[in-house]
Amino acid sequence: MNAGTPASAVPLDAHPAAGAGPLAIIAGGGALPVAVAQAAQQRGRRVVMFPVRGWADSSLEAFEHHWIAVAQVGRFQRLARAEGCRDVVFIGSAVRPPLRSLRIDWGTLRLLPEIARSYRGGDDHLLTGVARIFEAQGFHIVGAHEIAPDILIPAGPIGHLEPSPRDRADIARGLALLGAIGPFDIGQAAVVAANHVLAVEAAEGTDAMLARIAELRAKGRIPTPPGVGVLVKAPKAGQDLRFDLPAIGPRTVVEAARAGLAGIAVAAGGSIVAEPAETVAAADKAKIFVFGVPDQRP
Amino acid sequence: MNAGTPASAVPLDAHPAAGAGPLAIIAGGGALPVAVAQAAQQRGRRVVMFPVRGWADSSLEAFEHHWIAVAQVGRFQRLARAEGCRDVVFIGSAVRPPLRSLRIDWGTLRLLPEIARSYRGGDDHLLTGVARIFEAQGFHIVGAHEIAPDILIPAGPIGHLEPSPRDRADIARGLALLGAIGPFDIGQAAVVAANHVLAVEAAEGTDAMLARIAELRAKGRIPTPPGVGVLVKAPKAGQDLRFDLPAIGPRTVVEAARAGLAGIAVAAGGSIVAEPAETVAAADKAKIFVFGVPDQRP
Repeated sequence: MNAGTPASAVPLDAHPAAGAGPLAIIAGGGALPVAVAQAAQQRGRRVVMFPVRGWADSSLEAFEHHWIAVAQVGRFQRLARAEGCRDVVFIGSAVRPPLRSLRIDWGTLRLLPEIARSYRGGDDHLLTGVARIFEAQGFHIVGAHEIAPDILIPAGPIGHLEPSPRDRADIARGLALLGAIGPFDIGQAAVVAANHVLAVEAAEGTDAMLARIAELRAKGRIPTPPGVGVLVKAPKAGQDLRFDLPAIGPRTVVEAARAGLAGIAVAAGGSIVAEPAETVAAADKAKIFVFGVPDQRP
Repeated sequence: MNAGTPASAVPLDAHPAAGAGPLAIIAGGGALPVAVAQAAQQRGRRVVMFPVRGWADSSLEAFEHHWIAVAQVGRFQRLARAEGCRDVVFIGSAVRPPLRSLRIDWGTLRLLPEIARSYRGGDDHLLTGVARIFEAQGFHIVGAHEIAPDILIPAGPIGHLEPSPRDRADIARGLALLGAIGPFDIGQAAVVAANHVLAVEAAEGTDAMLARIAELRAKGRIPTPPGVGVLVKAPKAGQDLRFDLPAIGPRTVVEAARAGLAGIAVAAGGSIVAEPAETVAAADKAKIFVFGVPDQRP
């Protein structure tokens, strides 16, 4: 056991009902953890931040907090129980860690067979596996968008520009493609330019995919001129929105502009914007659109 | 008109019937143009090589040849007619050229509206557009595999190693994924490791996709250990095999090994191997399998 952590756990049946009581935020990188924490606090809720080492920023220390490591499920559960937290939000960017880097604690060790089973699947399996494990321990996983609905992208343009009819055709093709690969539990993004699919995201992540387009363009390998093409992001069909909502932020805008795209389209109501004001400012400055696509599923 | 090229074209109706007469090979990069030319010569057919500047190797000058440039459809057609060629093979690696780099000749200029229409679509549109244009001019596009069937990968293992049951599951998942994205006219390859899709190829090409896996692995971003995972390649459903058959060669093997994969699976009878002996030697040396997947379509 780590020194300096509370030794006695509050029994689970003493926890407040879900939706009330202090909120545990397991925080990865980026600006979203702060946005979610502030939204919860504005509603009068106490927040206990659990920044994850290697992912989260030290600015989260401004909140009540306990640093945790990826494989320290036991430590998290002990601390969260001691703080009286039952509701847990996962938010912020995370990188799937190499297995060899994990420093597993006893609480995690007990859960290892189940975690290993989750680890072998795609992202969805990993995340829903984690959710199942936490809920079996009496916690309640809450979506960040339930705590802070303002972080969800609304339908329509954000910023000054709107997609052209050709951009809209690219958006439709990108969404159809993401729908087709949904069952394969891959990434949540693709780049389509003038009906030509330039890139499909998998393990590399959105920023790396956009950097690839910029690189191919510099080599003259992109057939469409700058200013044509859209980054399309959408959650997978049936995706558990309590984890890993597609997210964009100012950096996405900068990378999309560097890739020579006309804009970014994300599923409205199913994607989040980190630092909305900065994102809009970056989009207007780069002269690209950011567009929330209304849900067209029947 | 270029100086030094034959001025008088042989009228089309004087051409020999398709399947006989000299064979025009429009040659891109790599070893395949030589393999196809030699296969045709071994069957007693005269070969006229048309190496494309920037793509083809100067070693092709060992054959009767005329260098051409990408947008010189007019020059090619004039020379091919003068040589008495009616059958045309496209073979070798090609990079979609940036439009601004094209030095368009008069024969191409006449065809520009049709070419532009093809250029806007995906690869299939481009290639079938080119085929349509050539056939409208009286040429007959022949598949490289029709001239040199030996370059097609047979079913089963090539080299000493075979896929494990887990590898076979990854191959099945990769083929299912490629089937799902077929209608989107994207790449022809993906990497699947322990059921997890690590990469999907689009504009970047297979080698760049494999380099990406190696890079992500070096950063600890690949959850599976080295020796797990398969590069899966297959033609798109309905793909015109006269163009752009999925191809692998020694370089693919080296890149797959660098990416830490267990092996390479390609659709048997619908994919080609450049330098088969070197490819097998590279695979055995790198201890990865190269496997021709039997066609399982009904």
